[in-house]
Amino acid sequence: MPSPEPAQLAAALPTGRLLTDPAKMAPYRWDRALDPDAGTPIAVLCAKTTADVQAGVRWAAQHGIPVIPRGAGSGLSGGSSAIDGCLMITVDEMTAIEIDPLTRMATVEPGALNAHVKQAAAAHGLWYPPDPSSFEFCSIGGNVATNAGGLCCVKYGVTTDYVLGMTVVLADGSVVELGGPRLKDVAGLSLTKLFIGSEGTLGIITKVLLRLVPAQRPPATLVATFARLDDATQTVVDITSAMRPSMLEFMDKPTINAVEDVTKMGLDRDAEAMLIVQSDEPAGHAAVEIAQITAICEKNSATEVFDTDDVETGEQFVVARRMAIPAVERKGSLLLEDVGVPVPRLGDLVRGIAQIAQRRDILIAVLAHAGDGNTHPLLVFDPSDAGQSERAHTAYGEVMDLAIGLGGTITGEHGVGRLKKPWLGDYLGPDVLALNQRIKKALDPAGIMNPGAMLD
Amino acid sequence: MPSPEPAQLAAALPTGRLLTDPAKMAPYRWDRALDPDAGTPIAVLCAKTTADVQAGVRWAAQHGIPVIPRGAGSGLSGGSSAIDGCLMITVDEMTAIEIDPLTRMATVEPGALNAHVKQAAAAHGLWYPPDPSSFEFCSIGGNVATNAGGLCCVKYGVTTDYVLGMTVVLADGSVVELGGPRLKDVAGLSLTKLFIGSEGTLGIITKVLLRLVPAQRPPATLVATFARLDDATQTVVDITSAMRPSMLEFMDKPTINAVEDVTKMGLDRDAEAMLIVQSDEPAGHAAVEIAQITAICEKNSATEVFDTDDVETGEQFVVARRMAIPAVERKGSLLLEDVGVPVPRLGDLVRGIAQIAQRRDILIAVLAHAGDGNTHPLLVFDPSDAGQSERAHTAYGEVMDLAIGLGGTITGEHGVGRLKKPWLGDYLGPDVLALNQRIKKALDPAGIMNPGAMLD
Ligand SMILES: Cc1cc2nc3c(=O)[nH]c(=O)nc-3n(C[C@H](O)[C@H](O)[C@H](O)COP(=O)(O)OP(=O)(O)OC[C@H]3O[C@@H](n4cnc5c(N)ncnc54)[C@H](O)[C@@H]3O)c2cc1C
Ligand SMILES: Cc1cc2nc3c(=O)[nH]c(=O)nc-3n(C[C@H](O)[C@H](O)[C@H](O)COP(=O)(O)OP(=O)(O)OC[C@H]3O[C@@H](n4cnc5c(N)ncnc54)[C@H](O)[C@@H]3O)c2cc1C
Repeated sequence: MPSPEPAQLAAALPTGRLLTDPAKMAPYRWDRALDPDAGTPIAVLCAKTTADVQAGVRWAAQHGIPVIPRGAGSGLSGGSSAIDGCLMITVDEMTAIEIDPLTRMATVEPGALNAHVKQAAAAHGLWYPPDPSSFEFCSIGGNVATNAGGLCCVKYGVTTDYVLGMTVVLADGSVVELGGPRLKDVAGLSLTKLFIGSEGTLGIITKVLLRLVPAQRPPATLVATFARLDDATQTVVDITSAMRPSMLEFMDKPTINAVEDVTKMGLDRDAEAMLIVQSDEPAGHAAVEIAQITAICEKNSATEVFDTDDVETGEQFVVARRMAIPAVERKGSLLLEDVGVPVPRLGDLVRGIAQIAQRRDILIAVLAHAGDGNTHPLLVFDPSDAGQSERAHTAYGEVMDLAIGLGGTITGEHGVGRLKKPWLGDYLGPDVLALNQRIKKALDPAGIMNPGAMLD
Repeated sequence: MPSPEPAQLAAALPTGRLLTDPAKMAPYRWDRALDPDAGTPIAVLCAKTTADVQAGVRWAAQHGIPVIPRGAGSGLSGGSSAIDGCLMITVDEMTAIEIDPLTRMATVEPGALNAHVKQAAAAHGLWYPPDPSSFEFCSIGGNVATNAGGLCCVKYGVTTDYVLGMTVVLADGSVVELGGPRLKDVAGLSLTKLFIGSEGTLGIITKVLLRLVPAQRPPATLVATFARLDDATQTVVDITSAMRPSMLEFMDKPTINAVEDVTKMGLDRDAEAMLIVQSDEPAGHAAVEIAQITAICEKNSATEVFDTDDVETGEQFVVARRMAIPAVERKGSLLLEDVGVPVPRLGDLVRGIAQIAQRRDILIAVLAHAGDGNTHPLLVFDPSDAGQSERAHTAYGEVMDLAIGLGGTITGEHGVGRLKKPWLGDYLGPDVLALNQRIKKALDPAGIMNPGAMLD
């Protein structure tokens, strides 16, 4: 039986928008980090309109109930997982997409999947660049709330570079429109930018205005393997200091092997590292860029360099790269890291992670958006083995400490969420953490928006 | 004689850093908007270090004295002009620039001129894109504080797209480091972005970390003239909806004539409008883009279309465009507008401005970063003619009201400053204005940072 309070909220909403049956609420309790400590909501509000979201937030504000905003639930930091007694507000049914080809803009409801925005843009010869590996099953609202990255960021930037405006329901249930269809606008503080990456801690995004660009040119692809890790990371530095490929991805040996187990595409299981590079320069010039990259790879003793301007052949390698997380997931439960360092420290980071793996006797597979210095060490463990599980969790923190020591960040694109919150203060330092908290407090004085994610 | 309080501050600083002599302070009283209502500081602190800035802010905070941060003073909205009794803190002597070619980053003190950063980057084959027309005499700190735009933004974005981190002295005199040399970093709220465009109202920037890109390719240039305004603005829409030129500038008839008066370069004085377009696509492809743009111009009845891939010939037209503000300035005193609209409304905006000019019987010359929909109507008046002066000020507000009515902004790149503050609420609406004020209050509870600029 629903407690009297959710019933009161249900009465204020169109029928069927509020779930209180535990079985129906279950799919909303976890994001893809599968946090075992996730709690149980008192209700899940499946919003279809901004007004639904407002009704939910107002009711929660009135009763001091924590609100967890949720998109597609593909997050990897526990940011949209439930806490006991929360009201989960999911916008995954708000999926409208409207393209204006004249201004090259898209007006998108937050639950629309990234892939669907890309498709809608493509129908007009346009392109929405940000491309998290999860693009087929993550929402634009979630992308904006985490400032999601992806594979093309190395040349085309991250989500924040494509957001012109948004509608947000604030912690008191009021609605504001930030930004709008103006390509340049400096009137007032940069509030649109502040809400991007705020992980649902400042409000719930119910509409987004995105900037689109003309369709990407078909990319040429280069794949290089290396017998020595340092040769691969030096190659990354040599490439990024000289040019701007449209993709520059890295996989280490455990990742290559996990992907090969699944795809059987003939990857070199003995290679210490593999790079996947793309150039989308115009015809003629892509070949020049690929030739320069080939020369850099060869100078750094690549064992094999293969390139193709056949888009489908190239895409097979990109698909293999995107498959890396699910492929490693078959080896056991994962703790997914997202640490980033300045590009010249990439080698130190990957080597340090291998040492942690050895010391803690667990498998850590490292893949990376290498051109941005952003790595995803995947810590594999057997949850039924208490000792191994504990060692994995210890290593999880050690990887972040290592990154901080190398001048790096604890999260390049996945967000702090609940899982990385304990390290945020170590990374930012007390003064910047306090500054974060002052802003949070100014916008959400009662602390009801996604408490425990990123900030307290 | 300095009042006792500045003397006390002077004692806490190395010799010669504090000016209190009115004659020496005079050059710091106005920015380029030359606001006749500018006040007189009690002292000007010429900071050479972050510690100097801290000492100034701490002392001001202690005594409740307003602080005005100042860079090169090229601002056009009165944001760095003095108010009576303020402490002006200028960072124009903090000019160090350090380039790291390996990571393609520049560490820059705020007083360094934009042009000097460009030069330092070019020495390593690198490029800092943001290029306000004032690039030879505006500072990087001022650029960051206003989120400055310019001519290449239409393809390469504005200042915020190139800032990775900064050092800021907050309103209580404490120092924080925001962001850093990580290309992707989502740990905590987007505070770096919040400080960009904050116009000195949240703190004083004392160091900036900038992202650089490989040198721009030499651009090809196209110049087109139009007998009818609507043909020119339709051309802008047709170009921007289909491609991304690296420059797309507009001048109307009064602007063309003012520039021709100075340059005598043979511009068509009868043309209603002129467009200057560049393409920096790679060799071969620039020619294709220029040919497409030529076809669009011709379709829209351009009276003349000229193009060149000689860089110097092209640069002459860009120099002519950059000269537009000083050229119009010779006609009288200026009120400089900076309104922007969605690109398809450009024609409505320029036509509406012409109507205002006629109704108020003053000269308004319009130039524009047309590809961004960002226009600079220059309102010319004779300050000794009280009636004309008053009509110009009335028109200044009417231009902003017109832009707001067309879904546009009151400022695309110059900032709100003191001159546009009365219109900010009309533009943002009460809720978003209140949100701005909540953030301001959270970070500067005593309201000492640049009071009266942008916010109260
Ligand atoms: C296999 C795999 C690969 C991935 N690859 C990438 C990658 O390459 N790059 C990358 O950046 N991420 C990647 N991710 C992580 C994840 O997909 C992104 O973080 C994505 O942006 C989350 O979107 P979502 O809709 O699933 O958000 P959710 O998981 O539902 O929520 C994420 C966070 O955003 C908040 N939120 C969601 N919607 C809203 C809203 N409308 N208003 C306010 N707050 C909201 C939530 O409260 C939570 O804090 C990957 C995930 C998986 C499983
Ligand atoms: C002829 C001409 C052409 C121009 N063209 C353009 C253009 O194309 N695009 C464009 O964007 N602008 C343009 N401008 C406007 C101006 O040059 C820019 O706004 C520039 O960014 C201001 O830099 P500044 O160093 O002169 O700043 P200032 O005028 O000194 O200050 C501007 C604002 O920034 C604040 N500020 C300055 N330094 C700091 C700091 N270190 N920390 C915190 N706050 C600070 C000030 O308080 C003030 O609010 C033009 C100006 C002129 C005169």
